[in-house]
Formats: sequence, C-alpha cells, structure tokens
Amino acid sequence: MEQHISSAFERDLEGIQAQIMKMGGLIEAAIRDAAKSLATHDVELAERVRDGDAAVDALEDMLNDEAARVIALRAPTAIDLRVILSVMRMSANLERIGDLAKNMAKRTGILIEMPEIGGAAKSLRRMSREVEAMLKDALDAHIQRDEALARDVIARDLDVDQLYNTLFRELLTFMLEDPRNITPCMHLHFIAKNIERMGDHVTSIAEQVVFLTSGTRPGDVRAKSDRTSCDPAFSTPVAARDV
Amino acid sequence: MEQHISSAFERDLEGIQAQIMKMGGLIEAAIRDAAKSLATHDVELAERVRDGDAAVDALEDMLNDEAARVIALRAPTAIDLRVILSVMRMSANLERIGDLAKNMAKRTGILIEMPEIGGAAKSLRRMSREVEAMLKDALDAHIQRDEALARDVIARDLDVDQLYNTLFRELLTFMLEDPRNITPCMHLHFIAKNIERMGDHVTSIAEQVVFLTSGTRPGDVRAKSDRTSCDPAFSTPVAARDV
Repeated sequence: MEQHISSAFERDLEGIQAQIMKMGGLIEAAIRDAAKSLATHDVELAERVRDGDAAVDALEDMLNDEAARVIALRAPTAIDLRVILSVMRMSANLERIGDLAKNMAKRTGILIEMPEIGGAAKSLRRMSREVEAMLKDALDAHIQRDEALARDVIARDLDVDQLYNTLFRELLTFMLEDPRNITPCMHLHFIAKNIERMGDHVTSIAEQVVFLTSGTRPGDVRAKSDRTSCDPAFSTPVAARDV
Repeated sequence: MEQHISSAFERDLEGIQAQIMKMGGLIEAAIRDAAKSLATHDVELAERVRDGDAAVDALEDMLNDEAARVIALRAPTAIDLRVILSVMRMSANLERIGDLAKNMAKRTGILIEMPEIGGAAKSLRRMSREVEAMLKDALDAHIQRDEALARDVIARDLDVDQLYNTLFRELLTFMLEDPRNITPCMHLHFIAKNIERMGDHVTSIAEQVVFLTSGTRPGDVRAKSDRTSCDPAFSTPVAARDV
C-alpha cells in the first residue's frame, strides 16, 4: 500500500469514500442537533433533524448503487473488494444512526409538555456528545487507516454504556419518587437507549476499520454493553425496596 | 431469468442461499426459544439461546467471506451481483435479530424473580410468534422470489407495531397502579421493544426481496412504526391524570 498507482478503481473508490464522509458529516450534525433540540426545547430544530433524514437515506442508496457499479465494472482484487464491502456496511450503520437521531428528535415536542426530570437532560447531552466524538474519530480512523484510533473508539463505547446504565438507575428512582414522572421517564429512557444503540453502531464502524487495517476481526475486545440485563443491581426489585 | 444454465456462479450462489436459509432457521428457533423461556420461566432454555448466538455470528462471517470470494472469483453480472449484495444485507439483518433474541433471553432469569405483570407475558408471546411467522415468510419469499408474499410481510409489521403500542400503554398503567411494578415493567418494555425491532429487521429483509424481484425499493410502503413518539395518547402525561 506504499506506492499508489492511481487507477480507475482508485478514483472510483475515492468517490465512494467522499460519499461516506459526507454521510458521516450529516449524521454527526443530526446527533448534535437532536440532542440540542431536546436540551433547548427547540421544536423547529427537531423538525429539521426529522426532515434531514431523507437526505441520508438517499446518500446511502446512492453509495450502494455506486459501490455495486464499481464492483461490476472494475472487478476489484480481493483486498479492494473488502474495502468496498466494508464501506457499504459502514454506510448501513450510518443510516441506522440517522434513524435513531430522527427518533430522538421526534420526542422533543412531547417532552417539553412534561415535567423536567432532574439531571436527565444533561446526562443525555453528555452521552450524545460522547457518541458524536466517537463517530468523528471512527471516520477519521477509517480515512487515515488508524487502527489504534479505531480500537480507542471501541473501548470508549464502554463509557457510553456506563452513562446509560447510570441514567437508567436514576430514571427508576425518579419514577418511584413520583408517579407523574413515569411517562416522561419512559420517553427519556427511550432516548437514552437510542443513544446507547448509536454507540453500538459507531463501534461497529470502528470494528470494520480494525478489520480493514489489521485483517482480523476485533471480536472479543468488545465487552457488552447494556448491563441492565445482567447487573444484580437491576435484578432486585428496587421498587419493592424503596417504596 | 427463464432459462437457467447452471454455471459455476450459480452453484456458488446456491451455496450462499443455503447458508442464509440455515441462518434463518437458527434465528427462527432463537426467537421461539427466547419467548418460550420467558413464558415458561425456563432459565436453561434461555441459557441455550444465549450460547447459540455464537453459531449465528460464525455463520454470518462465513457467509460474508464466501460472498466476497464468489464476487472476486466469478466477477458476476450486475444483476447477479445485486443478488449477492442483498443476501449479505439479509445476513446482517438476521445477525441483528439473533442479538435481539439473545438480549431477550438474558432477561428471563431476572423476570422470574419479580411480580408477574397482568397479560404482558401473553402479549409478548403473541408479538414474537408474529415476528417468527413473518421471518419464515420473508425467507420463503426470498427463495421463491415471491414479491407479493414479501409485500405482505412488510404490511404485517404494522400489526407488530400495534401490539407493541398497546403493550406500552398497558405497562404504563401497571406502573402507575403500583410502584413495585416499575422495575419488571421496565424489563418487559425492553423485551417488547426488542421484538418490535426484530420486526423492523424482518421488514428490511422483505424489502430486499421486493427490491430483488421488482427492481424497485419499496420505500414508502413502509409507514412507521413506534407510535409512542407521535401518538397524542402518549404525549399527555398520563401519570398526572391518573394518580
């Protein structure tokens, strides 16, 4: 990979890479704006996030069509093919993150009608900032073929999971304190879970980068994730204890 | 597509199709067993579902490697390439469904320690049966290139969403009735959401089938889904009203 002879294939691949970076930029903005619309009760911004998702979907379709065209036309070598197939997977992950951001923005209009829940908005903002930074780094790692950075992104997903688990506990406490908190907490929990899933998709992108740069699947480096299904703290019926 | 000359490519493709059907069979069983383990409090069965997921992941890796090999070796035509790329996407959807089934099974051990919540277990069983049937039909539609059946699967996802929305309301009511229900309801809600997401992935498989058989993306036939973010019934703070 030291010497590059710029072939027709490479020019095509550059075009595809440019598209994935464009998609990535839109998705970073969608995460940021969705979180901001929630924090600042900005219904118009939320609306723009929802409307913007169509552009991402269109980009994904274009990227897939273009990738298929390049594969059919250029008959790339096994290694080049691996790059294209990985980029297609990345674009699918980005598209899913966009859906999740849209879903998040949808709840802005609902939550402003409800009582505010302690520091939940702040926690959500922190989670989404972390995911946004991870996404930026994952895409940088892809372009710069930086395996170490990609592995760093994978490791940071544990922080997001940790933030999620902490918030889940907090929400439970608020629900127990006052039944009027139950409905807003359910919505906030949805949002938290959405951000946590965005983190999983970013991790999946970073895993593709590790696979492309090292040839091995990171597989088991990625411990998992949503601890509410196995942490004993969540298995004791807190409600029975506290109320 | 009337006359088939059995080429090396077609034999390879058949191998890949056989693998996807094998994956599909494992996933159908995983959905069924995960739901059964919840309904019958069968912790050992839940354990088997969790352990079985590794086999699905391995099949997906194999399928991707094989698909990449076939593309590189046979340089398929644009149409044949589209089939392979679609099958790769389907396998990614199946893998995600497997993860969701595993996640669902993980909660069996927790829920048996908690108070039972009305008809929730029954509703979950019904949802998961519907998703399992949809998956079976989506895979049949793929093998038989049956566009009508694939479109039928896409339409049926709305029933799953409806079941989910109803259950969401029920869970809110139970939480308001007795705070001791909050923790189990949060877990049940996770499970319901997981099944609803399985339905989305099955729909995505069916959409691939429509794309392959008709050449067009079904796109907007698929209304969306989780109504708790836009249904006015969920936007009024029920808690404030009822308690």
